[in-house]
Amino acid sequence: MTHPTIRFAKKEDCKAILELIHELAVYEKAGEEVEMTESTLIKDGFGANPLFQVLVAEDDNKIKGMSFYFIKYSTWKGKSIHLEDLIVAQKHRGEGLGKLLFDATIKEAQKLNAKRLDWQVLDWNEPAINFYKKLGADIDETWYSCRLNETEITNFFN
Amino acid sequence: MTHPTIRFAKKEDCKAILELIHELAVYEKAGEEVEMTESTLIKDGFGANPLFQVLVAEDDNKIKGMSFYFIKYSTWKGKSIHLEDLIVAQKHRGEGLGKLLFDATIKEAQKLNAKRLDWQVLDWNEPAINFYKKLGADIDETWYSCRLNETEITNFFN
Repeated sequence: MTHPTIRFAKKEDCKAILELIHELAVYEKAGEEVEMTESTLIKDGFGANPLFQVLVAEDDNKIKGMSFYFIKYSTWKGKSIHLEDLIVAQKHRGEGLGKLLFDATIKEAQKLNAKRLDWQVLDWNEPAINFYKKLGADIDETWYSCRLNETEITNFFN
Repeated sequence: MTHPTIRFAKKEDCKAILELIHELAVYEKAGEEVEMTESTLIKDGFGANPLFQVLVAEDDNKIKGMSFYFIKYSTWKGKSIHLEDLIVAQKHRGEGLGKLLFDATIKEAQKLNAKRLDWQVLDWNEPAINFYKKLGADIDETWYSCRLNETEITNFFN
């Protein structure tokens, strides 16, 4: 029986946060895509104008999962939350931590009067899709994701 | 021959911005989804902590298009830009304004050292998809969009 606590991350948690980011990226078959570092997380998330928020699930003095989100803006609805990553470490799946983290994220969305909470899921990630469907999410296949990466941005006018 | 100027929006432009938002929503068959108001745009975008940025294409003292974006955060790459809406008014299509607005957005991405620029496009919006492909965007169908709306957020624990 575990007694997890959900709380906002501190900068001391960035090492554990980075480990979770890596773990999810490997699961999503994109481990080599991660360029994030602990110091970038500390700089971008724990200074005067944090670019994101992180809720962590802590148990036995160990961080077992997190919800990583930021404020986004919908031109149709207004201030919203984008859930960038909801991650529970593989070996702690099935302990209910994902639901605890999602619930805590919803509470923050309620406090912010967020008009929407949105996130993305890979089309083959059935456990996640089923988890999100059970939570009542609308899952929509009609939007494609478009992207330019850093190199393409840098060289755009060359 | 037009001589459009691309500049950052001022709060006086919010009426024109809202008209563009409406026009795009109708084109996307979702006109009834727009709950945005001019006063919300002014409050959220032109106060001490703006939640978004808008570049407008102005010509003959008229706003003919805009790029509406905000800072987002990628756990893999870091600080990035999400292009929420790139809109050119229907009657001013074909004047090159979309490209001017996109270029100006890229310049802002370069100034910010953004790691990514990303946005979404509807799977049936072929003119937009072709425009983005010509710009070199990677268009990806493997991510589904998930969402809870305001009512679902509010009633989540009921």
